[in-house]
Amino acid sequence: MARPRLGHIQFINCLPLYYGMVKNDVLLDVDLVKANPADLARELIDGTLDVAPIPAIEYARHAEDFVLLPDIAISSDGKVQSILLISKVPATELSGRTVALTDTSRTSQVLARILIEKHWGASATYVEMPPDLPAMLRDADAALLIGDEALRAYWDQPEGLFAYDLGTVWTEWTGLPMVYAVWAVRRSYAAEQPEAVQTVADALSGSLTYCRAHLDDIATYAARWEQFPAEKFRSYFDALQFRFQPRYREGLARYLAEAAAIGQLEAVPAIEVFGE
Amino acid sequence: MARPRLGHIQFINCLPLYYGMVKNDVLLDVDLVKANPADLARELIDGTLDVAPIPAIEYARHAEDFVLLPDIAISSDGKVQSILLISKVPATELSGRTVALTDTSRTSQVLARILIEKHWGASATYVEMPPDLPAMLRDADAALLIGDEALRAYWDQPEGLFAYDLGTVWTEWTGLPMVYAVWAVRRSYAAEQPEAVQTVADALSGSLTYCRAHLDDIATYAARWEQFPAEKFRSYFDALQFRFQPRYREGLARYLAEAAAIGQLEAVPAIEVFGE
Repeated sequence: MARPRLGHIQFINCLPLYYGMVKNDVLLDVDLVKANPADLARELIDGTLDVAPIPAIEYARHAEDFVLLPDIAISSDGKVQSILLISKVPATELSGRTVALTDTSRTSQVLARILIEKHWGASATYVEMPPDLPAMLRDADAALLIGDEALRAYWDQPEGLFAYDLGTVWTEWTGLPMVYAVWAVRRSYAAEQPEAVQTVADALSGSLTYCRAHLDDIATYAARWEQFPAEKFRSYFDALQFRFQPRYREGLARYLAEAAAIGQLEAVPAIEVFGE
Repeated sequence: MARPRLGHIQFINCLPLYYGMVKNDVLLDVDLVKANPADLARELIDGTLDVAPIPAIEYARHAEDFVLLPDIAISSDGKVQSILLISKVPATELSGRTVALTDTSRTSQVLARILIEKHWGASATYVEMPPDLPAMLRDADAALLIGDEALRAYWDQPEGLFAYDLGTVWTEWTGLPMVYAVWAVRRSYAAEQPEAVQTVADALSGSLTYCRAHLDDIATYAARWEQFPAEKFRSYFDALQFRFQPRYREGLARYLAEAAAIGQLEAVPAIEVFGE
């Protein structure tokens, strides 16, 4: 029996989880493979990986290939700080205008479209671009940023622009949390190696328990390697959840239904969870 | 400042070191990138990696690009178990015969040529092949195996064939240890980030100290994931050294000189060590 091959997103958002995995010696029991979220989904389908965090919308588009781990997701209940719409005009006035979407996140692209269209009632035109705010705002009236670029804009808000934390806007609109990524298991692997999947699930849960108890240490650690001070990371790590409890699953279901409603998802899959 | 990018060989021979790194939380301080030895050398030259274990012969061929870490290498002082020449005839009778060399190791290929030509005094013909013993012995009179394939043959020696542990033969011939791989630092990185290099060197030394004190645990751990029993791994981990003390460096210099003598290396470089 080979060690389960577990994907890992090497972004700041997954750093607390990584810290917990290292401290708990999880890397002896899994073969950790780092990649960006879109590649992780492909490698999971290809069979190069057994378990991996993948974007919520990618999960929905290939749900027949996956089951989900029950107790982990990348999620927020309100503000998330790292998914930001920056706009020259109030969001309700984006009709007929152009919105530049960072090409680095599928789930956030669809989230931005949902909120602009259904919450703010604006009918905009969308262009996909690399995540460079000045370049985006040269060609468009608003820009969707995620990750480090979004955090930078969140913490050092550009003057004269409107900035919307899409986690906050989503929860204010729906009353539900938002789920950005889920930990998916290749369905055939779950069927053939249920014990290995349980081992991975337990290891991740244990790592989350560790990281929740050590967020100050993790913020200090993050500040050593990244350009932001520890208190900013602490605030970000408080906003970012790794929860997938029933309310979070309800939030995911609502997100997928809204994605289908605006034509960004062909069909809304039933959410299948490992061991349930 | 970014975390140093440290290459790692994901073979059994580096498992004790990996175990020590995990137990010592080294993966918080370095960005560990797993690859095979030949790719590691290329990625180090390209600048994708900062420090990595690379085959001794690859180091010598690009020595102007590298300095070496002082206290770590993959080496043996006598038997190594995982580098094996399997032959239908005694090695001294290989003249005019064909030797199949596994295409998975440059350093061992050159080691086999040195011993056949200079120690056994045989003038053979060489072909490079994938590591499949039956196929190799169908097309050739002897076969060089390394890694898992060699260990299998070492522990379960095929009948009616001659088997030579090339670590043993090398040390009997030269009186010196053999160095298979060295930890190389990109020269420009060593010049620009000496503190980061020292951090990596200290982390690796600490991991070796940990792993030397826990070889029984590591053998048990290895047996969980691989097809051999713990006592075989324990014996292998005892044979395999991670030493690079003066006698080992002397062994490396001798190896490189012999490689040049048989035309497998253009020039013998001076061995440059970080901080010395």
